[in-house]
Amino acid sequence: MPDDIRTRIEQVQAKAGFIPNVFLALAHRPDEFRAFFAYHDALMDRAGGLTKAEREMIVVATSSANQCHYCVIAHGAILRVRAKNPYIADQLAINYRKSDITPRQKAMLDFAMKVALEPYVVGETEFETLKDHGFSQDDMWDIAAIAAFFAMSNRLANVSDMRPNDEFYSLGRGSSAKG
Amino acid sequence: MPDDIRTRIEQVQAKAGFIPNVFLALAHRPDEFRAFFAYHDALMDRAGGLTKAEREMIVVATSSANQCHYCVIAHGAILRVRAKNPYIADQLAINYRKSDITPRQKAMLDFAMKVALEPYVVGETEFETLKDHGFSQDDMWDIAAIAAFFAMSNRLANVSDMRPNDEFYSLGRGSSAKG
Amino acid sequence: MPDDIRTRIEQVQAKAGFIPNVFLALAHRPDEFRAFFAYHDALMDRAGGLTKAEREMIVVATSSANQCHYCVIAHGAILRVRAKNPYIADQLAINYRKSDITPRQKAMLDFAMKVALEPYVVGETEFETLKDHGFSQDDMWDIAAIAAFFAMSNRLANVSDMRPNDEFYSLGRGSSAKG
Amino acid sequence: MPDDIRTRIEQVQAKAGFIPNVFLALAHRPDEFRAFFAYHDALMDRAGGLTKAEREMIVVATSSANQCHYCVIAHGAILRVRAKNPYIADQLAINYRKSDITPRQKAMLDFAMKVALEPYVVGETEFETLKDHGFSQDDMWDIAAIAAFFAMSNRLANVSDMRPNDEFYSLGRGSSAKG
Amino acid sequence: MPDDIRTRIEQVQAKAGFIPNVFLALAHRPDEFRAFFAYHDALMDRAGGLTKAEREMIVVATSSANQCHYCVIAHGAILRVRAKNPYIADQLAINYRKSDITPRQKAMLDFAMKVALEPYVVGETEFETLKDHGFSQDDMWDIAAIAAFFAMSNRLANVSDMRPNDEFYSLGRGSSAKG
Amino acid sequence: MPDDIRTRIEQVQAKAGFIPNVFLALAHRPDEFRAFFAYHDALMDRAGGLTKAEREMIVVATSSANQCHYCVIAHGAILRVRAKNPYIADQLAINYRKSDITPRQKAMLDFAMKVALEPYVVGETEFETLKDHGFSQDDMWDIAAIAAFFAMSNRLANVSDMRPNDEFYSLGRGSSAKG
Repeated sequence: MPDDIRTRIEQVQAKAGFIPNVFLALAHRPDEFRAFFAYHDALMDRAGGLTKAEREMIVVATSSANQCHYCVIAHGAILRVRAKNPYIADQLAINYRKSDITPRQKAMLDFAMKVALEPYVVGETEFETLKDHGFSQDDMWDIAAIAAFFAMSNRLANVSDMRPNDEFYSLGRGSSAKG
Repeated sequence: MPDDIRTRIEQVQAKAGFIPNVFLALAHRPDEFRAFFAYHDALMDRAGGLTKAEREMIVVATSSANQCHYCVIAHGAILRVRAKNPYIADQLAINYRKSDITPRQKAMLDFAMKVALEPYVVGETEFETLKDHGFSQDDMWDIAAIAAFFAMSNRLANVSDMRPNDEFYSLGRGSSAKG
Repeated sequence: MPDDIRTRIEQVQAKAGFIPNVFLALAHRPDEFRAFFAYHDALMDRAGGLTKAEREMIVVATSSANQCHYCVIAHGAILRVRAKNPYIADQLAINYRKSDITPRQKAMLDFAMKVALEPYVVGETEFETLKDHGFSQDDMWDIAAIAAFFAMSNRLANVSDMRPNDEFYSLGRGSSAKG
Repeated sequence: MPDDIRTRIEQVQAKAGFIPNVFLALAHRPDEFRAFFAYHDALMDRAGGLTKAEREMIVVATSSANQCHYCVIAHGAILRVRAKNPYIADQLAINYRKSDITPRQKAMLDFAMKVALEPYVVGETEFETLKDHGFSQDDMWDIAAIAAFFAMSNRLANVSDMRPNDEFYSLGRGSSAKG
Repeated sequence: MPDDIRTRIEQVQAKAGFIPNVFLALAHRPDEFRAFFAYHDALMDRAGGLTKAEREMIVVATSSANQCHYCVIAHGAILRVRAKNPYIADQLAINYRKSDITPRQKAMLDFAMKVALEPYVVGETEFETLKDHGFSQDDMWDIAAIAAFFAMSNRLANVSDMRPNDEFYSLGRGSSAKG
Repeated sequence: MPDDIRTRIEQVQAKAGFIPNVFLALAHRPDEFRAFFAYHDALMDRAGGLTKAEREMIVVATSSANQCHYCVIAHGAILRVRAKNPYIADQLAINYRKSDITPRQKAMLDFAMKVALEPYVVGETEFETLKDHGFSQDDMWDIAAIAAFFAMSNRLANVSDMRPNDEFYSLGRGSSAKG
């Protein structure tokens, strides 16, 4: 394993307390590993109009539409932690339309789901709706790019039968998660 | 525009004679630009069991299923050039099942289309079929990863209404293409 | 509220420690309430070739296909408790094909999903497959009837925007669940 | 066969002149039989804003979408008799949008079909439309509950290959049906 | 109205006792009228391996999949008369898989439905199955061409809201139909 | 081969410089051949509110939705020639929504695609939209009839694996096409 990849994995382990399986699943292809995580971080850690929790909402809702085991469980955990809400991830995974989210977040997810499921119809109508909810051009790109990146990620995880670590299932569900 | 991105674009222009619009469309986000093309090159320029033309076949067939204007036209051109065949790109874009390809390539595209359109069903059955056609584990990853990468790419291009350069429409169609 | 309905609700509360919202949501229609729970109990508490956990597996997988918030959360909890497994419900809700289940259970869910999603194609082929996995005629009816009952239940819950009680989200996830 | 079930069947036979096959098909499971018909009667014989013919319209249209042989033929006959109209059942079974119904009935069936086919999208928009056509809260529940009950019934009939009695095909088609 | 068209309509009226509405609906475009009925007769009145009743079976099953009011009612009537069977048309319109037909007719309709609904997948596999049931090359063309012709016809009738004559609803349902 | 068919084929060859394969593919059934081309010419050569290029636009967009190899390639060539535009056919075949067409042409294709893909929903709403874009009743029939005719044609070509002549791929792509 190349040094930079090993270092990255050790950093994640130090921070999370365990190695999320996606890091091991992609390590056999170092160039793809580097590009994947560089892309991921560019989209998910970016400053901008979307909160980090909202970025994870996009991941959970679209990954559920793609029936991606790894992504729903792992990013569901991250979402619970970031949103300090033990219920929201399960709600979004089942039916985002009936979840406890704001109308603005509902519009964000309507758009993300279209990007995920029928990207060929996206056009001015969709952008106008987002603008009406206060999203900037830059925000729209973020929503679309996150949905697009996980369209890729969901497919890799599904094909390689990537399994979430057991830790993810319970993370952020406890009473401390609400505090 | 950061220097490394400008340099990359100038190199492409020198080689192709024009700047493919995808480079300009992504340049406003340098980190995403770098990750996107690093990922692209890792998959498309890789040595392995798939020829470069076969990699482009996957792109054209799956991008057509996603109705991606830019990807079908631009990668259709590259496919015509790499396969030295002026007909194959149009055939794959319309109906890959009826194209002039080998049974092995047909199996490759059956798999790629499943990754593109219903990744949640992919499993042992699909891998067995690929193995029967002589594909290695590494080849299978390549097929899946290319289909997954363009699942992302198609969505970005569709949402941003990316337009192919006029040059792509006619590239590789002439008599010299067959020679 | 009629006495028999009040009594039924009080019994559930005594046993569960809280009143599952489905009981309150249906109480405004006493005759339908009685028929609903009589039907539910006839199918879910029945002795037969399917374990109680397996019956809940059918509920969770098909209710997820119908994007039913209440049913996935509430029956996911019951499944975790009955299967003494904190992971299985989330796995089945996301993609039953990739869950940690036996081939027999996979065949059971393949059949249940067909009943849920395209009942008009079910025929001899499907019954032969179930027979090959050791299911009796009586078991087949149970699988189909549970999938059919929750086809109804999922629709009622979706239309009435039925919400799961907070207690269900965490039930059966703790370490004691594994013991 | 338990006495109460035998009595129920004899009563139906006395009234209809024959035993509709659904009664025999469910008799092997007495508890389910009782719950099924109790539920059916609670919904179909209820007083309220929908006429009995309108209730049957919901059954015929949604059962056709589920390709349920028994339900379309048997309830098509009942609809012809209740509506005193020899054409309406066939029209609704083929394409309810082009049937000779009122705009109010069209709205009722648009809603019922959504409950039958994509219950996860039903929400405020749908309720507003129904309200505009004069439907009460109670009527909305009736429409949804009938569509939901036959979502169950259609699945049971399809899986068990339930056959309609020959009598149903011609019932209510004659000239007397118009009088 | 051109003379040849008037004559054709008068002939039909003399034979059927009424003018089927399709003749009036197309008369405003004489060239299309002539081509339509020439094509129709070439396919439906042709000698060959398929009986006239079987040709009508294809019409009824595929027209129902296209939800074509006129075609299901009018050709349902013709089918009842030609098959001397008052039940078969309704059965095929609802769910051809569960109809009282031979395995050979089931294979014929499986093929016709693929031509109607996903013509782009039809290939060697489908032809092999038909051959196994004794269909000749010529029969296969007939099945496909009838399904294709009514793909056109169903669209014309749906768009123009063509209504079947009342006579068609009851034709071939009486006891004489069985004799 | 009957004389009239031979003559027709020779005329086409004289004009086009080659025999489009569709003429040979249908010649084995003279009556169907005559009806097919009479119908085709009645719709495509008709005077009216649609230009000849617009008629071909309908063919290319709907034939691509049906994945018809022959029709997209052959009529794509005719469209390039008639529109004097080397790009438009490929654009329409990939995603008509993102093509360089006028809003009026976009409305025309929205309607044509509905006729092709879900004809059972077409009704007043669709006609109102067309009227708002200035289409007459007669134009609406033309759009629907062309989409309907190629619904048939696409199915025949797909089932018979009809291949486009090599000449079609490059026709109308050259610089002279723009002049």
